[in-house]
Amino acid sequence: MFIVVAIMLASAFTHAAPERAFESSDSASVSKNSGEDEIAPILFSLIIILLVAKLGGDLMERVKQPAVLGELVFGIIIGNLSLVGFNGFEVLKEHATIKILSEIGVIILLFEVGLESSLKDILAVGLASFFVAMIGVLTPFVLGWIVSALFFPSSSIYINIFVGATLTATSVGITARVLKDIGKLQARESKIILGAAVIDDIMGLVVLAVVVGVIEAHNVGGSLSSLSVLWIIVKAFLFVAGALLLGTFLARRLFKIASQLRAQGVLITFSLIFCFLLALFADKIGLAPIVGAFIAGIILADVNFQDLFTREQHQLEELLRPISAFLVPLFFVYMGLKVDLATFGRAHVLFFALVLTVAAIAGKQICSLVGMFVKNINAWAIGVGMVPRGEVGLIFAGVGAGLMVDGRPVISSDTYSALIIMVVITTLITPPILKQVLINRG
Amino acid sequence: MFIVVAIMLASAFTHAAPERAFESSDSASVSKNSGEDEIAPILFSLIIILLVAKLGGDLMERVKQPAVLGELVFGIIIGNLSLVGFNGFEVLKEHATIKILSEIGVIILLFEVGLESSLKDILAVGLASFFVAMIGVLTPFVLGWIVSALFFPSSSIYINIFVGATLTATSVGITARVLKDIGKLQARESKIILGAAVIDDIMGLVVLAVVVGVIEAHNVGGSLSSLSVLWIIVKAFLFVAGALLLGTFLARRLFKIASQLRAQGVLITFSLIFCFLLALFADKIGLAPIVGAFIAGIILADVNFQDLFTREQHQLEELLRPISAFLVPLFFVYMGLKVDLATFGRAHVLFFALVLTVAAIAGKQICSLVGMFVKNINAWAIGVGMVPRGEVGLIFAGVGAGLMVDGRPVISSDTYSALIIMVVITTLITPPILKQVLINRG
Repeated sequence: MFIVVAIMLASAFTHAAPERAFESSDSASVSKNSGEDEIAPILFSLIIILLVAKLGGDLMERVKQPAVLGELVFGIIIGNLSLVGFNGFEVLKEHATIKILSEIGVIILLFEVGLESSLKDILAVGLASFFVAMIGVLTPFVLGWIVSALFFPSSSIYINIFVGATLTATSVGITARVLKDIGKLQARESKIILGAAVIDDIMGLVVLAVVVGVIEAHNVGGSLSSLSVLWIIVKAFLFVAGALLLGTFLARRLFKIASQLRAQGVLITFSLIFCFLLALFADKIGLAPIVGAFIAGIILADVNFQDLFTREQHQLEELLRPISAFLVPLFFVYMGLKVDLATFGRAHVLFFALVLTVAAIAGKQICSLVGMFVKNINAWAIGVGMVPRGEVGLIFAGVGAGLMVDGRPVISSDTYSALIIMVVITTLITPPILKQVLINRG
Repeated sequence: MFIVVAIMLASAFTHAAPERAFESSDSASVSKNSGEDEIAPILFSLIIILLVAKLGGDLMERVKQPAVLGELVFGIIIGNLSLVGFNGFEVLKEHATIKILSEIGVIILLFEVGLESSLKDILAVGLASFFVAMIGVLTPFVLGWIVSALFFPSSSIYINIFVGATLTATSVGITARVLKDIGKLQARESKIILGAAVIDDIMGLVVLAVVVGVIEAHNVGGSLSSLSVLWIIVKAFLFVAGALLLGTFLARRLFKIASQLRAQGVLITFSLIFCFLLALFADKIGLAPIVGAFIAGIILADVNFQDLFTREQHQLEELLRPISAFLVPLFFVYMGLKVDLATFGRAHVLFFALVLTVAAIAGKQICSLVGMFVKNINAWAIGVGMVPRGEVGLIFAGVGAGLMVDGRPVISSDTYSALIIMVVITTLITPPILKQVLINRG
């Protein structure tokens, strides 16, 4: 029923377009880009995106799949309706504001993820998780690089790096959900998986930081010498470590000053400022903004706000939830919008996607080696639990599609589609297999 | 201290600008407006705007003034630092996304205001409030028109209409705060004032709807015949009445369907969709989007969500608060940014502002006539209580500055400044005078 309303809406506004265009040209003499600051297409886009996000999420929840897949798949559908002659939703892709809002959405998302991963908890899970994460990042990276190099022997090295980087991701949410569903959240292998997934996030973001840094360095004319790569790696580590140290030292002090302010919504506002500030710093030194947002979350996870903001009745996580309910779906639907379904019909895209998926799964199975060192655990569950790429894989693919090398996106439309297919398959197959492995062999 | 950090930040990023520009031109061949979708200037703008909003709000709260004035004044300051040679904040005015976010902010604000004004309550306050509101809209409108016509004898009729419309506003928040502070919120005159302020909002928005409609009709080539004005008035009333009736009938049914969805954050998401949808409809039939958002709020104020969304622990108002804490300050700071302080140095602007302010105050005093019909009330308190234009006046001025007639904004930079001065003065003088009137003569 909602779909019908949405399409009626789209038709109504598509027909109204000539009139709008006339108004815009009427005022064209005043404002250079008057089309860019019209509110109507933005409101229309927000309505459609929020609507399909919830409908897609609902559908996936009903078939026991993660909601994020629904947002992605529905995004792909409405982004490709022009294939069947319906162009009412093309406006969703046209506005810079929707793109920027989706980027703010993913910044908020990583901030939230960071808030759930306190530094104390990470240090507590210990060596086993670190080992799993290390293997789980390195092997898929190398495998992804090799697969990409085999498929694109003549293309630039950057695409190989990027495909490798996208394969490093692990989406902890999907595995955590399965573990919770079958009541195994407190089991030893569960703690190792969840700890590893968090460390994996950090390592993955460092890899992403290095990859983005290398590409940005190339764009400003630098060559890819091993020294410059080394410098970028050092810079990424310095940023992550420096932000964590300095941030942990400063955060409570800054929020203590902020808590003296007599204004409403100080906690949520200053948390957003803190998050945006680290995202901006990350961007300014050539890393991805989400790296900064994630670190901001980790830092604030260990700050006790309750004795600072005594009048504030809500936890920071609670305050963030409505903002993320508004902005995060924009990111996943937008990721779907950017998929060109026509590429799915090309045999080489599907074949590349298939090989990538195999590499993605195989790469994480090496994590099961941890079973050699830790007694009495279900080692296979760890390998399987690390497989889903989920939202983290999407974020990496999205960053790749937005990066330019020599005036072209690092990730072509074909490669982007193949990465999305890999993300969808790894995410879809994990829950049933993980349940089997844990129930039959647990 | 924050100010120092902000200026350091601004300097750092201003110096970094050439590098950014180089990167942009590097990828210019791919994306038409690559500067428009850079995330860094948006993050920078959000940080600065949120920071000054809270600092300004804090300062005003300390001198017992409404926080919104602080956001406005600090917006004016950082928007005019180029007068002292500092251009680090000019980027805040340049991006369409910040403008659009500020417009979404004011849509959210009116939605919130609507949520606090249930239709039942409005119908309950009765005839006295209706009378006060009617007089309180008509007299300032006529006075504003006359003042504007005297000052700009040769300019178009639209500026007179608009100045008149801006004078109709009443900001209930400021008066309610004073009444609460001196413990008079339950007094009879308080209820009349608050009821009248809500009806005033609706009437004011209808006036705004008509004014915007007349101007849009002019822009698409229509002449200002009395028939077309009548049609716009009918359309505005039809929209408000129709949306209220149909919306009240449909809202609960739509949210009942939505509540079946198995997804997170359904209540907040569908409330935003509902708000954006009515805002979009209002815009599409030529009214201001905020009119639709306000009506959406009034409709949802009477829906009982608690038995529909049983798993949702928060009220809709609570869920909206973090979103409004994020986006609403963007609107008020942006309104300040648009003020050109240089205009304040022009004698005719200050003189116009002064006469406008007198008209704005005098126009609302006629409301005291209600004392002739209702016994035992402090009639002067009602006249004084209706004076502050606050955020509502700013919203009207903002709409005027955004509207184009014959390729020029309806409200010139000079007139905009005069309106802002009028809003600031009426808002500043009300609390002390109202206290005097209520304490000495109550």
